[in-house]
Amino acid sequence: MIVPDSADVTTDVTAELLRYAEACRTAIPAYLPADGVTPYLRTPVADYLARPGKGLRPALCLATCEAFGGAVADAIPSAVAIELLHTAFLVHDDLADGSELRRGQPTLHERYGAALALNAGDALGVYAMSALEDNRAGLGGSLAGQIAAEFEFMARQTVDGQALDLGWRIDNRLDIGPDDYLELIMRKTCWYTTILPLRVGAITGSRGRADVEPMIRFGFLLGAAFQIQDDILNLTASGGAYGKEPLGDLLEGKRTLMLIHVLAAMSPADRNRIEGFLAAPRASRGREDAIWVAARMEALGSIAFAKAFAAGIASDAATAFAAAFAGVGETSAKAFVRSMIPFMVERTW
Amino acid sequence: MIVPDSADVTTDVTAELLRYAEACRTAIPAYLPADGVTPYLRTPVADYLARPGKGLRPALCLATCEAFGGAVADAIPSAVAIELLHTAFLVHDDLADGSELRRGQPTLHERYGAALALNAGDALGVYAMSALEDNRAGLGGSLAGQIAAEFEFMARQTVDGQALDLGWRIDNRLDIGPDDYLELIMRKTCWYTTILPLRVGAITGSRGRADVEPMIRFGFLLGAAFQIQDDILNLTASGGAYGKEPLGDLLEGKRTLMLIHVLAAMSPADRNRIEGFLAAPRASRGREDAIWVAARMEALGSIAFAKAFAAGIASDAATAFAAAFAGVGETSAKAFVRSMIPFMVERTW
Repeated sequence: MIVPDSADVTTDVTAELLRYAEACRTAIPAYLPADGVTPYLRTPVADYLARPGKGLRPALCLATCEAFGGAVADAIPSAVAIELLHTAFLVHDDLADGSELRRGQPTLHERYGAALALNAGDALGVYAMSALEDNRAGLGGSLAGQIAAEFEFMARQTVDGQALDLGWRIDNRLDIGPDDYLELIMRKTCWYTTILPLRVGAITGSRGRADVEPMIRFGFLLGAAFQIQDDILNLTASGGAYGKEPLGDLLEGKRTLMLIHVLAAMSPADRNRIEGFLAAPRASRGREDAIWVAARMEALGSIAFAKAFAAGIASDAATAFAAAFAGVGETSAKAFVRSMIPFMVERTW
Repeated sequence: MIVPDSADVTTDVTAELLRYAEACRTAIPAYLPADGVTPYLRTPVADYLARPGKGLRPALCLATCEAFGGAVADAIPSAVAIELLHTAFLVHDDLADGSELRRGQPTLHERYGAALALNAGDALGVYAMSALEDNRAGLGGSLAGQIAAEFEFMARQTVDGQALDLGWRIDNRLDIGPDDYLELIMRKTCWYTTILPLRVGAITGSRGRADVEPMIRFGFLLGAAFQIQDDILNLTASGGAYGKEPLGDLLEGKRTLMLIHVLAAMSPADRNRIEGFLAAPRASRGREDAIWVAARMEALGSIAFAKAFAAGIASDAATAFAAAFAGVGETSAKAFVRSMIPFMVERTW
């Protein structure tokens, strides 16, 4: 790991993360439906937002805006738009995956039914666009247009990545390698989780003067570290702060580094069993089988492999960070973004 | 009816409708995903678009743009955005309603599964935003911003109306009256089907100089006439050009004018039976029961009631049209929009 005293840094990161996330969270209600809108929409739309998430995406955007010379307030509409879109993706992903838990409570479709959840996800996307519209007043039409184009490009990547993720599972593809996995999470996770927040933060803070090209590489590495740790936590975390269904990824047949590794490492007999597990419909995959797959992953070093992989990516991310933030001075905002690198792979929630 | 020789007008309308719709249809592929995007996205996204719809919404937008002094080309990005959003709504509505047929073929979720259909609907919304972005180059940032704000407001109405429609069915509300129905379709149908295309067409054609306030009343009446006829066709149309599942609205428990009327008009015993039908889950509602409900609607004059209701609305729409288009000269484009009024209630597809 790059940062020597990671324990201290992590403590700081958590407090700063909370501060940035809170700045976004308090701005969100102004963009949600008010009186005159049916509770069949208002209630499900507000539900996930009332369950505290980490706020990683808005925090990255707001801190990067500050690091590039702007004020937190300058990037609030974009940060709100990111968080609302993220929430929209969560709602639709949970529905598509048949997930049961989100942030420690039943998923939206479990609570309100698939139809109202689907519509609430659509609405969250609409409200995100409303937030983006506010950039026009705050930053002028030209910069607002540039940011809107960033969002549009990102959204295209996200739906493409989501389709790939679903398609691989539907077709039960077993020929996926680590490169395929990285390509998938580049599209599905990194663009919206890290690359866009970083780029939009830098564009906003520098009023369009920063070269945001190097943010793609840094964002990719940061986002990949985040996603691999996310996948690991789904296997290893339990109870408490971890709000998703443990082993849910296995039950949903998600292609992860651990799955790729274990498929390559296991005996033919075991491989037959796991292939049968993956070929079965989601509803008939048993939890005992998932526990067995997780145990094989542990025994065959698949989790250690993924951890080492993530550590290597985090190390590369530190170099990429230096390039992407080379043009700006050392501020606490810049330090916060840097400290997100170890945070991504060390977090337990 | 207002137009005396409706047979002739309908013939003209159909040809003009086709011409406008075609101008939009040929522009759409440029906004769809190209090489490098997974077929798990490309294929479902293109599916509904390859099934020819009426193209009412883009036609209204393009003709209104012409009527207000613009060229068809000026409004193409907005017309494309409307058609893509309409397609996105169809995909998600079909999924939410569990519908089986769309334009004579299996619905998207029937063909590709719920998850890929859901994601394709999301993607269509994203591509609609991309089309809108092109207004910036064609019309300038200020007008493009005004049009984007129109879309945003419209989308808020649509998700609100969709939630209301779903919520009434989920809670099996039986206390819905004609006014509630009109409020519902104002939000769910009229804003995106008629009001937005008319307003955006007028804004674009007049380069922002037209007073588009009167378009709300005209669009509401035109859209209501469209929706009531749509509901009637679901009861009375069969085979051929009609591409939806006959009686699908009844099987889905949709609140229509005919349902409102028949609930009020039928005997207590019959009302008990229909309430049982509506209280049952979608999957256990039988087609025989739906046929029985449709027969009661026919016998008790519910369909005649809805037809008379639509005719009254079409008559009011003619007056509202005169007010909304008072400022522009008599052109074939204006005549086309006027002729859409009888078309809405006389169409059989």
